[in-house]
Amino acid sequence: MSTSFADLAGQYRRALLDDVIPFWERHSVDSECGGFFSCLGRDGSVYDTDKFVWPQARQVWTFSMLYNHLERRDSWLQIARHGADFLARHGSDEGGNWYFSLTRDGRPLVQPYNIFSDCFAAIAFSEFARAANDERSRQVAARTYRNILGRKENPKGRYAKAVPGTRPMISMALPMIMAGVTRELEWLLDPVSFERTLDACADEVFSPFLDEKRLVLHEYAAPDGAKLDCYEGRLLNPGHGIEAMWFIMDIAERRGSRPLAERATEVVLRTLELGWDAGMEGIFYFLDSQGRPPQQLEWDQKLWWVHVETLVALLKGYRLTGREACWKWFQRVHAYAWGHFPDPECGEWYGYLNRRGEVLLPLKGGKWKGCFHVPRGLYLCMRELEKLGAGPLGRAAL
Amino acid sequence: MSTSFADLAGQYRRALLDDVIPFWERHSVDSECGGFFSCLGRDGSVYDTDKFVWPQARQVWTFSMLYNHLERRDSWLQIARHGADFLARHGSDEGGNWYFSLTRDGRPLVQPYNIFSDCFAAIAFSEFARAANDERSRQVAARTYRNILGRKENPKGRYAKAVPGTRPMISMALPMIMAGVTRELEWLLDPVSFERTLDACADEVFSPFLDEKRLVLHEYAAPDGAKLDCYEGRLLNPGHGIEAMWFIMDIAERRGSRPLAERATEVVLRTLELGWDAGMEGIFYFLDSQGRPPQQLEWDQKLWWVHVETLVALLKGYRLTGREACWKWFQRVHAYAWGHFPDPECGEWYGYLNRRGEVLLPLKGGKWKGCFHVPRGLYLCMRELEKLGAGPLGRAAL
Repeated sequence: MSTSFADLAGQYRRALLDDVIPFWERHSVDSECGGFFSCLGRDGSVYDTDKFVWPQARQVWTFSMLYNHLERRDSWLQIARHGADFLARHGSDEGGNWYFSLTRDGRPLVQPYNIFSDCFAAIAFSEFARAANDERSRQVAARTYRNILGRKENPKGRYAKAVPGTRPMISMALPMIMAGVTRELEWLLDPVSFERTLDACADEVFSPFLDEKRLVLHEYAAPDGAKLDCYEGRLLNPGHGIEAMWFIMDIAERRGSRPLAERATEVVLRTLELGWDAGMEGIFYFLDSQGRPPQQLEWDQKLWWVHVETLVALLKGYRLTGREACWKWFQRVHAYAWGHFPDPECGEWYGYLNRRGEVLLPLKGGKWKGCFHVPRGLYLCMRELEKLGAGPLGRAAL
Repeated sequence: MSTSFADLAGQYRRALLDDVIPFWERHSVDSECGGFFSCLGRDGSVYDTDKFVWPQARQVWTFSMLYNHLERRDSWLQIARHGADFLARHGSDEGGNWYFSLTRDGRPLVQPYNIFSDCFAAIAFSEFARAANDERSRQVAARTYRNILGRKENPKGRYAKAVPGTRPMISMALPMIMAGVTRELEWLLDPVSFERTLDACADEVFSPFLDEKRLVLHEYAAPDGAKLDCYEGRLLNPGHGIEAMWFIMDIAERRGSRPLAERATEVVLRTLELGWDAGMEGIFYFLDSQGRPPQQLEWDQKLWWVHVETLVALLKGYRLTGREACWKWFQRVHAYAWGHFPDPECGEWYGYLNRRGEVLLPLKGGKWKGCFHVPRGLYLCMRELEKLGAGPLGRAAL
């Protein structure tokens, strides 16, 4: 079994270092205007030159993280710096809010209409500051984090379309991303407020959003915890719920809390049972919790990040709880993901498959897909598999 | 040939009067809270009770239009009044801007974040005012139209996410819907400004948006007419372009302009050649004009309104220009639409098919699909087929 973990770890490592990272090194760097191209066709050719801040920031994070945690390659630090410089120069408005998108040469196109760009900028500059030991980037990260805290009660600001008061609704995405960002910025925060924030996020991800009977996470709920019988209230995004759960598993590991790890693992397994397409394999993108028609026309598609994040969650859940169901599901999702997403001919992974698992869009990057979920997932799976390979059946942690 | 037109006209009439309208009469009327349910499952059961203003207003228009133009059935006028009363009571804010959605009992949920709700409210109250000879509704229609004129230079107001100045962009949807609304409100407008507005809309639909070489309409362009090399600039929505062209054909018929009718017909045919899925039949929802990956994940789906509006455009084009290509394409699209969208078992038409023509969502109504495109299309096709049946091969008009 432990050889098999080692073999698998090697498979993930090779895909990361010999395929995915080289693809972005080769094709994404805009040496003329700075920053990265994220809209890359099947063969890596650039089909759109706009600079979307999510993938810009996430690529800075990825290359910095690999430099910090995997190998001190100068070329990685250089690429991270290339993106961080572009973002520092062009990415935010006078109030320090991060735009959604920029032109190729950095002029702002789309306003900072929510705080997700800010969240990815915060983790990008935090990770880069550590890689480059760069004081200015540390300040950008800290300032952006403070800004997020100030905006998080009303994250859409003047762009919010909901009439206040009629149907108050909160989003699971917010405590989830706050947990992720806070963990990343631990080294910049005072320990007391850090621990408090982390615990609060863990509580807030579960309490209003979890269906306590079926143990799946809703995307939206009323602030008082009521489930809402409307499109948003019924919405399930299995991949998102599963990704949130491995954030929680990391907190559980940090706290040494086996009950928290087991709860998060249970949610992952229950979500997979609900979200797995029994007929055609793969995990659905969106579902309606009552089985009614979801409003998302792309509901039945199979997306790369959904499957990548599920692989991470299953390995973490397996290592932390030892539940065999995690390993069984991991083998199934691993087989589906590796059988459908990688493109051995041109490199990297496809992002968007239709329900039948056929390529829906041949792109390797776009407005949303960049150098992030695939390399982060490959890296994290590799690390989990290495730990599993090292321990007695990997049940050591909690 | 003319019997065949008559037979076809009968087919469209029967679908309208014996299937589609009864479906909405039976299932959509909310006798408790007023207004209409638009979220109807396959069998007509209500799966969501929110009241979206687009389908509310469009259903008022449909029943009023049938009363005004097809048959003076009291039950139709009553249903139109049922919706108009609800909208008049709850649909707009203090400034007369129409919300996007309301709760079942009419409390506002989503702000008037663009002017499309206003456009549908204007045509609804205009058509209902004529049906019911109702002065208050006439005033609502006129006031809403004035409001639209005041907002149309900046239709998204404070909800606009684009940074002003970086990449000015205008939308084909605006002159297109202005043409549609203005035609509907002719009886309320002074003749000089009416004719001027109509001509301006016809010009504005073509001039910045038409690819003069390929003769297909783009959804967005720069105000100076430049085509923009970005996702929005490259976006084609074949059904939308084709629908715009039958609005133009109506203007051409009114003006007695054969060149305008021929131009619009040519655009319809060229759009179909580009937008038709040769492998699996049906018309794509979205395409990228350069053949790059569109950002819309639902790009390859086959939607009811796209096919219905295409049927209308092909019959109008055929009657006005006599081009045989229109008739050939009509037969092809007719066969696809009637072979895939109607649900003989439960009534009405499905809205959303996947690329292969399989039902993607079994709903008959939702947030966007209501009592509008299917009955309007069936009615208009019936009328066109009746005219074609009456004339010498129908080439009489221009």
